[in-house]
Amino acid sequence: MLGSETKVQHILRGLDQSLKRNLNFNFLLFGHEKKIKKHILKFKRLNASSDIISCEDFVKMTDKPSEVIKSKVQTSMLQAIESVSNNISNAVLSFGNTGALMSLSLLKIKTQDDIKRPAIASIWPNLKGESIVLDLGANTKLDERYLVENAILGSSLASILFKINKPSIGLLNVGKEDTKGLETIKIAADELKRLTENSVLNYKGYVEGNDISIGKTNVVVTDGFTGNIALKTAEGTARLFQSHLKDAYKSSLISQIGYFLSSISMKSVKERLDPRVHNCGILMGLNSLVVKCHGQSEYKGVSYASDIIYSLLSNNVNERIKQYVRELKDKVNN
Amino acid sequence: MLGSETKVQHILRGLDQSLKRNLNFNFLLFGHEKKIKKHILKFKRLNASSDIISCEDFVKMTDKPSEVIKSKVQTSMLQAIESVSNNISNAVLSFGNTGALMSLSLLKIKTQDDIKRPAIASIWPNLKGESIVLDLGANTKLDERYLVENAILGSSLASILFKINKPSIGLLNVGKEDTKGLETIKIAADELKRLTENSVLNYKGYVEGNDISIGKTNVVVTDGFTGNIALKTAEGTARLFQSHLKDAYKSSLISQIGYFLSSISMKSVKERLDPRVHNCGILMGLNSLVVKCHGQSEYKGVSYASDIIYSLLSNNVNERIKQYVRELKDKVNN
Repeated sequence: MLGSETKVQHILRGLDQSLKRNLNFNFLLFGHEKKIKKHILKFKRLNASSDIISCEDFVKMTDKPSEVIKSKVQTSMLQAIESVSNNISNAVLSFGNTGALMSLSLLKIKTQDDIKRPAIASIWPNLKGESIVLDLGANTKLDERYLVENAILGSSLASILFKINKPSIGLLNVGKEDTKGLETIKIAADELKRLTENSVLNYKGYVEGNDISIGKTNVVVTDGFTGNIALKTAEGTARLFQSHLKDAYKSSLISQIGYFLSSISMKSVKERLDPRVHNCGILMGLNSLVVKCHGQSEYKGVSYASDIIYSLLSNNVNERIKQYVRELKDKVNN
Repeated sequence: MLGSETKVQHILRGLDQSLKRNLNFNFLLFGHEKKIKKHILKFKRLNASSDIISCEDFVKMTDKPSEVIKSKVQTSMLQAIESVSNNISNAVLSFGNTGALMSLSLLKIKTQDDIKRPAIASIWPNLKGESIVLDLGANTKLDERYLVENAILGSSLASILFKINKPSIGLLNVGKEDTKGLETIKIAADELKRLTENSVLNYKGYVEGNDISIGKTNVVVTDGFTGNIALKTAEGTARLFQSHLKDAYKSSLISQIGYFLSSISMKSVKERLDPRVHNCGILMGLNSLVVKCHGQSEYKGVSYASDIIYSLLSNNVNERIKQYVRELKDKVNN
């Protein structure tokens, strides 16, 4: 909570709101004791369900992951991750440096037996509801093995979150035809087709950037470089839209009255598409649950992320993902 | 005009509207003579400034570019491109198969002397105004030489369209720090830094997906794979936003009244961000101007694309780009 760009009071307010819905939550808050104590008094419910672990040091947003993992400093991020790897807590929610969080989690929590590289997955709103998109930046190397692994991880998450037996999977590409795109993607597509013929997965073919928002498949698979660019471009577009809307409403008195009248329904749209709300990344493929929230998250984003963690933990999701991956890998090998 | 998903009447209406603003335009319309004649009578101005070139054959949206260039069939696309390469017309505007358009243009119009591979550039709306983003899908190979070439092409287009001496350039990446991203991008960044130290370009460093909409730099450079995914993801997000807004307004009578009152300013927002309007790709690096419009363009998109072509032609843009590229390349070699 220390190196984060999210304000302590927003984090506490978000956690408190989530606690209202998810009564059995207990929090370990790693950060500046004084600062947390000052703000937490406003949130009685949260105060009663939390322990503060005082930390003086933290990972900065600009710190290099390679140096963070070498350092012996007991940062708030390291202590939070160790509380999971030592089975003191069940999940980590971080607002800090993504690269450092990835590297420290890899080092301390480690990947599941059958997974080579973790991926960051996110729940992406679309015209039909929601889909899982991954990888959003954990692993920027484009490699057919990682794409297939991401398909397995995404499929397991979607099957549990959306309660679908075999979620449909699309591979992100620059066209729908088999001949389109990069060689690596074509090789991954062939492997995914094979796994679908063997009834392991439910691969539907290539999808394009606009298909993410259309909701063509339950899972959209890509590499961490492309996924990160797509995610941030979508966030930027949503903000541009909001900003232009705001200007438009200010442009005349009638528009302002119009805005006032439609503001309730407008608010719901904003929340459904606001990148400050839909901004949490689930680190997939690790032995425990690690969730990353956007640095600039406001309290609604915090509370949304906290809700997701609660839902995943109460569904025992990580064990189920591990089992799902094992079963898939067994089928692949037979 | 034949293989396109855009309806003939939309194309004609768009061209007619553009002609209202750009009086000296003359059009050669390549397509079904009967169909065009049936609709063009509604547009007197356009009818008086157009010649119809009757074509029976056309490139389908699903045709493979590699087969289109081998074929001897006199498709409407081929004839339109040949009218430019034979100096009968000055620019091609197409609504058809992008891959085929690229391949035929490469074959018949050819790249400028100093350019190895063309790129598709688009004018992207942002919080400050507009920027040039390229490549949006001409060349999916990630290669440092192409990225540097794209920076030169984008810089020349921005300098002319936005009337800026040295447009700022950003390289699309997954983080702002020098250490982030793929090796190829780092090599391109080093070369762009060198060109900036030598006062050739004005490279500002890495930008992320959300910086496109923020308008951090006048030019955003990327490879055709990443650019295409980013463009289509942004289009999908804009459509998702519009769809949710529409639903929100329908949700109650008060919202509907609100929408009615604010509909004029809403309309302007929609147009400013509607992918059906901002959808034309300028093929950069060729000896003549070739512009591709989205397959599903409606008349406003057609008229917007036509306006851009008029503005580029009246500014003698292709000669200026060639000269600009030559000057830059001379500086690079000295």
